[in-house]
Amino acid sequence: MSLSVNSYFDDKVKSIAFESANGPVTSGVMLPGEYVFDTTKDEVMKVVEGELIVKLPGAAEYVSFKTGTEFNVAANQSFDVKVTSTTAYLCFYS
Amino acid sequence: MSLSVNSYFDDKVKSIAFESANGPVTSGVMLPGEYVFDTTKDEVMKVVEGELIVKLPGAAEYVSFKTGTEFNVAANQSFDVKVTSTTAYLCFYS
Repeated sequence: MSLSVNSYFDDKVKSIAFESANGPVTSGVMLPGEYVFDTTKDEVMKVVEGELIVKLPGAAEYVSFKTGTEFNVAANQSFDVKVTSTTAYLCFYS
Repeated sequence: MSLSVNSYFDDKVKSIAFESANGPVTSGVMLPGEYVFDTTKDEVMKVVEGELIVKLPGAAEYVSFKTGTEFNVAANQSFDVKVTSTTAYLCFYS
């Protein structure tokens, strides 16, 4: 068992992947910016510190998710994220 | 602004340091093991996924902190942590 670190978007997003008691998780941090993420599995994204402003697949509008809130994205979708203050998240895969 | 990744205890603990809206934070993950951490600042440790079993400075017994709970450690102290299932945490410095 080991902890792998991944970087995305010119190192503006970094995450640590691990196996939790509840399955695979990544614990990550996003610097301010705008990002498009593609899912390969069903994901639950939980904001643990800060705010993610998210346009979910098929949505017309951005919605704010702050510390302690979460959202779901199905597999094989993409979603848009705006970050204005550096934010930590957990992503649970299933 | 950038995200720095640090590793401790033979890579069994890794963390990403960043500046949140609430000040400096590290977002980290601990593999199962036993660790002793030394503080240089006042810290609030928040368990965001999993469980930290902690013996606080001066305490005689270990206490369990699970997802959503937190504990404080003053500067220039050390505390003992046991991890039985890989756990993600946030550490806030002040």
